[in-house]
Amino acid sequence: MINFDYKNDTKIIFGKTTEGRVGEECIKYSDKVLLHYGGGSIKKSGLYNRIITSLKEQNITVIELSGVKPNPRLSLVQQGIKLCKEHGIGFILAVGGGSVIDSAKAIALGALYSGDVWDFYLNINSPIESLPVGVVLTIPAAGSETSGGSVITKEDEQLKKVVAVDFLRPKFAILNPELTLTLPDYQTSCGAADMLAHVFERYFTKVKNVDLTDRLCEATMKTIIYQAKKLVNNPKDYEARAELMWAGTVAHNDLFGTGRIADWASHGLEHELSAITDIAHGAGLAIIFPAWMKYVYKENLDRFVQFASRVFNIDINFENLEETALKGIEEVENFYKYLNLPVRLSEINLDESLIDVMAKKYITDSNKGNFKSLNREDCVNIYKLAF
Amino acid sequence: MINFDYKNDTKIIFGKTTEGRVGEECIKYSDKVLLHYGGGSIKKSGLYNRIITSLKEQNITVIELSGVKPNPRLSLVQQGIKLCKEHGIGFILAVGGGSVIDSAKAIALGALYSGDVWDFYLNINSPIESLPVGVVLTIPAAGSETSGGSVITKEDEQLKKVVAVDFLRPKFAILNPELTLTLPDYQTSCGAADMLAHVFERYFTKVKNVDLTDRLCEATMKTIIYQAKKLVNNPKDYEARAELMWAGTVAHNDLFGTGRIADWASHGLEHELSAITDIAHGAGLAIIFPAWMKYVYKENLDRFVQFASRVFNIDINFENLEETALKGIEEVENFYKYLNLPVRLSEINLDESLIDVMAKKYITDSNKGNFKSLNREDCVNIYKLAF
Repeated sequence: MINFDYKNDTKIIFGKTTEGRVGEECIKYSDKVLLHYGGGSIKKSGLYNRIITSLKEQNITVIELSGVKPNPRLSLVQQGIKLCKEHGIGFILAVGGGSVIDSAKAIALGALYSGDVWDFYLNINSPIESLPVGVVLTIPAAGSETSGGSVITKEDEQLKKVVAVDFLRPKFAILNPELTLTLPDYQTSCGAADMLAHVFERYFTKVKNVDLTDRLCEATMKTIIYQAKKLVNNPKDYEARAELMWAGTVAHNDLFGTGRIADWASHGLEHELSAITDIAHGAGLAIIFPAWMKYVYKENLDRFVQFASRVFNIDINFENLEETALKGIEEVENFYKYLNLPVRLSEINLDESLIDVMAKKYITDSNKGNFKSLNREDCVNIYKLAF
Repeated sequence: MINFDYKNDTKIIFGKTTEGRVGEECIKYSDKVLLHYGGGSIKKSGLYNRIITSLKEQNITVIELSGVKPNPRLSLVQQGIKLCKEHGIGFILAVGGGSVIDSAKAIALGALYSGDVWDFYLNINSPIESLPVGVVLTIPAAGSETSGGSVITKEDEQLKKVVAVDFLRPKFAILNPELTLTLPDYQTSCGAADMLAHVFERYFTKVKNVDLTDRLCEATMKTIIYQAKKLVNNPKDYEARAELMWAGTVAHNDLFGTGRIADWASHGLEHELSAITDIAHGAGLAIIFPAWMKYVYKENLDRFVQFASRVFNIDINFENLEETALKGIEEVENFYKYLNLPVRLSEINLDESLIDVMAKKYITDSNKGNFKSLNREDCVNIYKLAF
C-alpha cells in the first residue's frame, strides 16, 4: 500500500422523495441559484416542478440553463459562466447525470475566473476556487456527484478534457432511486458499464499489498454486475435501482483508490472515441475495456486470475492460469452483451482510419496508463483489438 | 434499503512518516493546542518529540494533558475542560487510540459548554458545538478517528455512556502504520476484535435488500481476519499493519451502515462488562459476540448462513442450514482464540452474581438491539451463554 491523503465531504441524501429537501440544502450556500439540467425529461416526469417548489419555499431566486447534452459542451459552459457573472449566482444546482454535473462544475470554475475556463482543461492554469455545486442525480453512472472531476468537450476541435480537484466535489448529492425507474434501458446499461469501469481503473494496479481495497472493489463489482442484470429483466425494481445508484457513487468516491495507483488509460482511450463519435461514454467503455484487458493481462496475470476467481467465481485452472484470466475477460464481455451494449468498434460502424487519429490525439507526448504504460502504437493495437 | 443521510468529512493522511504533517494540519484551526495522550509510550518511541517538533515549527502553543487510560475517565475529561477554558485552547490533538480520542472529544464538547459535560452522556442536554479535534492514531481499533462517537466512563458510578454527533468527527486523522509496529500483541488482538465488531453490528440487520453494503462488510471482515492472523505470527509486518489500520477506520466510518439499521446490543452488553471489570473493550467483545450470535441467530438464519458461507467459505449444508450457521459462529470464536483473546466470562474470573447487575444497568427502561430486541432476561441469558 502506498501513502495517501483522502477526504470526501459530499453530503449524501439517499432515498425516496429526498428531492424535496433540495431547497433547504441550497439555501445553506446562497439564495441565488443557477439551475442546470438537460432536456425536457425532468419536466415530463414532474421532477422539475418539485425542485422549483422546494427552491421557492426557501425564497431562492432561480436562473435556469438547460440544454446539456451527453459529452457536455464547452459552448454551453461558457453561457453558464456568463449567466453566473451577470446575475451574481452563488450556487449551482445540477439536476441530471454526469454530463450535467460535469457541466455545472465547469461553470462553477469559470464563474470565479477572469480568464477562459478552458485554460484549466488544457493545464494552462490551475484552478484555485469555484462556486459551490449541488446535485440531484437522475442517472447513476459517472459518479461525478461526489467526485472532484469534470470532463468537458470542446466540440469544434473534438477535444475531450478533464479537470480534477478536491474542492470541486459537490456539497451535497441527493440520490433518489425512484427518479431512475423510468430511465431508458440503454442509459441504465451505459451507467452500469461506466460505474464498473471506475472500479476497473482502480482495481487493475501494479501496487502490491492492497488487500482491503481489492476486496472492496470486488464487492462493488459483484453488486454492479448482479443488480444491473436484474434491471435488464425488471427495470422497475426499486431495490435494484437503489443498489446500483449507491454502487455508482461508491465506485467513484475515491475510497477504493486509496493506497493504490489507478490506471485510467481505458477512460482516456474512450474519451477519444466519444469525442470523435459522440457515443455514450458507458457504451464506449464496453468496447474499450475487453480490448484493453486482452492487451494488458500478461502484465500481471495473477491479478487477472484473482479477478476471474473472486468476481466471477471461475474455478482457477492452476495448470493454465492464462485460460482462467481469459475466462474472466470473456465474462466481462458477456456482461456487456447481456446489457445490450456494443462490445466492438465495428458494431458502431467506426471508420477504421480514425484509429490512428484517436491514438495520435490521446498520446501527444508521454505514455498513458499505469498498469501497462501505453505508447501510441499500443493504443492503435488496443483500438484494433476492439474492432 | 432504507433512506439515509451520510457525510464523513475527516481528512485521512495515511502512510509512513505522516505524523510530520501534524503541525501544518493543526495550524489551520488554532495556534493554541491541547495535546492529549496516554502514558509514556509515545515518549519512549520518539513520537512525542516528533509531534512537538512539528507543532513548534508552526509556532503553536502547546498545553499538555496526559494520563488517559483504557475506558477513559470523566475525571480526566473534567481536567481537560478546565485547561481549555483557562488557556483559551482552540484545538485538541489526540495522540493515541480510541480512549484518547474519545476523551479528547469529550473535552472538546465540554470546553464550549457552561454546564457539566456529563449532561450530554446522560441525555440531559444535547450538544450543539465543540472545539475541533485532530488525531494521530497509534492503536487501530475503535474507529473513533473518523467517527462522531465518544464513550466515557464515570468511574465512581461504574457508568459507561456514549455521545454520537456528526460534528464530533475529527478534522483530520493521521494514520501511520509504522507507529503500530511495536504494539503489544494483546492490544493488536483487542483492536482487531473491536473493528470486526463494528462491522458485525452493522452486518447483522433485519433490513432487506442491502446487497452492496453486505458485500462491503464481508470484504472488510475477511481482510480484518486474514491480516490480524498474519500479525499474530509476524507483528512487524508493515503491510499487514497498514491493512488492519485502514480496515479499522473504514469499519467504523459509517459507510457500511448506510441504508441499514445496525444492532449495537453487543457493544452495550460489553460496555457494562468493561465498566464493571475494566477489561479491554476488544477482549470484552470477543467474549460477548459469540454468545450474542448463538442467542440470536434464529432471528434470521439465512443471514448467518450467508455470513458463514461468504466470510469463512464454509460449504452450505442445504439440508441443515442451522449447522452451517453454527459453524460460522464457531469460526468467529476460533478467530478470537487464534488471537489469544478470552472467549468466556469464566476465563476472566467474573463473579457470576454480577450478571444480574450488568443486565439491570444495561436495560433500564426500553429493550436494546435491533436484530433481536433484548429485554433484561435476554441479556442475562446472553451473559450466561458467555460464561
